[in-house]
Amino acid sequence: MKRILLTAGLAALASAAPAQSKVEIFGVADVGVARVSGTGVSKTGLSTGGANISRLGFRGTEDLGGGLKAGFWLEAGMDVDTGAGKAAGSSGLAFNRRSTVSLLGHWGEVRLGRDDSASFLNTLIFDPFLTNGVGGTMAFTILGIPGAANATGGAPIQISNAVSYFLPPNLGGFYGQAQIARGEQPSGAPNHNQGNYRGLRLGYRQGPLHAALAAGKLHGDTSANDLTASNVGLSYDLGMVKPMLLWASEKRGSLKVTALQLGATAPLGNGELRASYGHYNTADSNADWNKISVGYGYNFSKRTQVYGTYGYVKNKDGASRSIGVQGLGATGTSPGGSSSGIEVGIRHFF
Amino acid sequence: MKRILLTAGLAALASAAPAQSKVEIFGVADVGVARVSGTGVSKTGLSTGGANISRLGFRGTEDLGGGLKAGFWLEAGMDVDTGAGKAAGSSGLAFNRRSTVSLLGHWGEVRLGRDDSASFLNTLIFDPFLTNGVGGTMAFTILGIPGAANATGGAPIQISNAVSYFLPPNLGGFYGQAQIARGEQPSGAPNHNQGNYRGLRLGYRQGPLHAALAAGKLHGDTSANDLTASNVGLSYDLGMVKPMLLWASEKRGSLKVTALQLGATAPLGNGELRASYGHYNTADSNADWNKISVGYGYNFSKRTQVYGTYGYVKNKDGASRSIGVQGLGATGTSPGGSSSGIEVGIRHFF
Amino acid sequence: MKRILLTAGLAALASAAPAQSKVEIFGVADVGVARVSGTGVSKTGLSTGGANISRLGFRGTEDLGGGLKAGFWLEAGMDVDTGAGKAAGSSGLAFNRRSTVSLLGHWGEVRLGRDDSASFLNTLIFDPFLTNGVGGTMAFTILGIPGAANATGGAPIQISNAVSYFLPPNLGGFYGQAQIARGEQPSGAPNHNQGNYRGLRLGYRQGPLHAALAAGKLHGDTSANDLTASNVGLSYDLGMVKPMLLWASEKRGSLKVTALQLGATAPLGNGELRASYGHYNTADSNADWNKISVGYGYNFSKRTQVYGTYGYVKNKDGASRSIGVQGLGATGTSPGGSSSGIEVGIRHFF
Repeated sequence: MKRILLTAGLAALASAAPAQSKVEIFGVADVGVARVSGTGVSKTGLSTGGANISRLGFRGTEDLGGGLKAGFWLEAGMDVDTGAGKAAGSSGLAFNRRSTVSLLGHWGEVRLGRDDSASFLNTLIFDPFLTNGVGGTMAFTILGIPGAANATGGAPIQISNAVSYFLPPNLGGFYGQAQIARGEQPSGAPNHNQGNYRGLRLGYRQGPLHAALAAGKLHGDTSANDLTASNVGLSYDLGMVKPMLLWASEKRGSLKVTALQLGATAPLGNGELRASYGHYNTADSNADWNKISVGYGYNFSKRTQVYGTYGYVKNKDGASRSIGVQGLGATGTSPGGSSSGIEVGIRHFF
Repeated sequence: MKRILLTAGLAALASAAPAQSKVEIFGVADVGVARVSGTGVSKTGLSTGGANISRLGFRGTEDLGGGLKAGFWLEAGMDVDTGAGKAAGSSGLAFNRRSTVSLLGHWGEVRLGRDDSASFLNTLIFDPFLTNGVGGTMAFTILGIPGAANATGGAPIQISNAVSYFLPPNLGGFYGQAQIARGEQPSGAPNHNQGNYRGLRLGYRQGPLHAALAAGKLHGDTSANDLTASNVGLSYDLGMVKPMLLWASEKRGSLKVTALQLGATAPLGNGELRASYGHYNTADSNADWNKISVGYGYNFSKRTQVYGTYGYVKNKDGASRSIGVQGLGATGTSPGGSSSGIEVGIRHFF
Repeated sequence: MKRILLTAGLAALASAAPAQSKVEIFGVADVGVARVSGTGVSKTGLSTGGANISRLGFRGTEDLGGGLKAGFWLEAGMDVDTGAGKAAGSSGLAFNRRSTVSLLGHWGEVRLGRDDSASFLNTLIFDPFLTNGVGGTMAFTILGIPGAANATGGAPIQISNAVSYFLPPNLGGFYGQAQIARGEQPSGAPNHNQGNYRGLRLGYRQGPLHAALAAGKLHGDTSANDLTASNVGLSYDLGMVKPMLLWASEKRGSLKVTALQLGATAPLGNGELRASYGHYNTADSNADWNKISVGYGYNFSKRTQVYGTYGYVKNKDGASRSIGVQGLGATGTSPGGSSSGIEVGIRHFF
């Protein structure tokens, strides 16, 4: 009722009082200078999201009593180097990273909207570079998928039209998530499953140990184009160093890529050393490739870090993978060639 | 002067101090699960704005002294199910719902910018479903209008380039608004009136009674395509139930559609029952249709509501209207067929 | 901890607590009624940014200790008359005006991202109308540049992919900025410099005196299309009146335009009188034009101003320049004709 009056413009501007506490503004501004190189060509310029993806968000929770809470979360990705947003098909801002409403209770959380896909998150959590920048793992969205109405280009990083259930915290370290999303095709159409997704993620985190597995399936325009993504992650914090293992596989028809990555982070001075080595195994064994990454992030504060990262990809004769970075892109690499990237940047949480 | 320095980047970041109180962030996050059905086809997925349109806004007022105030209001619509914004022609965010600066005094309010059109608001205020979701009235933007430079598709919901005057509050229950907007065509062009709009709204709200009428005219590319929208609303709050009546008509050339809708809301438990029945009468009497809607919204709090709504449309032989919902769309309906929609969602004010 | 689980699982985004103070929301909402006229044609409607460009921004600084600070600044332009944003190629919102991360110390500031170009700012600072509205100077972005990947249409106002160094404040009135930006073309390409920009700005401001000069070069698709912009500004505040001089030149191949503008602002009552006269001299002397502008801004408060401005352009026989205004555009002017614009608006800082 109150909203109606506001919309209708009666005494509209009167109720401005103390609403600020309902909404938290948060985000990441991450920008750097990078150089990516392929076969006989390189590109130098500004990059963004080299340590953490740049974003601006609005979120809040409301205590409904009886252990129940409601929450909303709106999070827009952006390129700090150009100011562009990440709306589908344009450079405007949109809440492409997350746009959800949740109900939370002792029984867990039900979340509706656009969100990270369940089958993506492990590749981020068990990668020392969080999938970002010139050093990030390539163990996700490797295989394209033709005509996926609900995802762009391959196994989804974020997925729209999703309903998720999350286990409650305080299960002795166990956590988990089940997620379904709809491609929203009309019933009866030959490809009425197109874009439908379902995913599952289960993990255990206690003391120094963290282990998780996930799997997801995205329906293509035909069942031959259905895409399956599975992954397992493991890390153990030894104090001086935290080794981590990531196994991730994507399969579509006869195509299959399996990544096995060893990573580690280690505190050093006011910062953190990061390193990873990944082997990417394809159905065609001549199309495999490897990637090695090293980096260091120096923390001026909990919010502000300066980082430097180097990544190197070596292809077998049938592969031409190259290192790209958000805001600068990639250069071409010849089959069997190598590609490298170097980046120095600053990441600021707000 | 201060702004220049800021822009110029000298000591730019120094002046961040206590500005927060100048801007209120507000909005609605509304997302649900819906199914819409037509003739032999249905679609299931996530919807948004089923109870209140999802939005994010920034607004504030400044007291100028002497009873004068200045205010601004920037409000962007969005689809929570996908994170998409509602910019014209793209999925980026824009202040499509409202983008205005106001001067307010004892004499009323002058408001400049993009805003709800005067001839739209009654259809919202006197509809138990606020025009939204599977249950919302279809009594607005029924007739398309070719080539309207200042509006999309028909009688405008919001309109750009508008100047409005609002009567002050405290007129013993009377309120009103006059609005003109410009299509901004060059003078002398054959269609130099195209997109020009003028509208008027008058209402009376005192105790349990609320009555209002409005009319608006939008110029088309030719005078034969001028579109006129008129409506009358009436409601009376009996406590146990609040019946409401909405009459709305749109006319363009020989085309005319008139809607007559009976609605009611009734408090029930921690929530509200809603129902409406509308008859839509067209110039071609064989193209009439009817819609019936029922729903219930349960309030967890003043800010958070869970709702369920059902709507049903029955067409005469010459009509093929169907129920659509934001974020999911509609399915086709054969001439003379029926269409239905069901939706369960959560609406959170922030 | 909760945030970690939500987005990434790492301690990355852990600092969610009382974050409101980390972000300042700021902006300008400026909207008016304007009429622009050319040869035998005029256009009337709503304009925006007539006094200050309308914008919404988010910014903040963090004290890192030892005199070091980190800062971020995200600023989106918009049209208040329509609610549209200014993303490249669409009407969505984007941080087109500024999107930067900075490190600031006693040694100055390093700033990365999209920002005002060094060679634009003087035309704003030494123009009584700040380049805006019907009265603003035309002494910038006069010459187009074919195929500039990193700028739109001519000498850049803002530029992406920029690294800037600013001198520290407290240099006895001296300030300065060096800026480079990359078009981010692949090495080896024939036009690998395309879009590269470098600029320099130096100024002195002490007591009533303010003087500055700047120069910038933007590489075109060929070296014949390289564009050079240079300008000098001077102002002296006499108290009763503040005269200002702006000389600005743009050069591309054989094309050259040089503007010489005299301006003045003068406090009057609760506001400010503004006037300017500019002569625009082209390589083809028959294509010169002149512009004269007068205006007044009345301050209701420090934040809210009502303004009125009139501008008039007179072309020589070979020129057909006309007055345009954001949100309304311009009408055509015949070679040798005149153009005028008048605008009354309200500008509100928030």
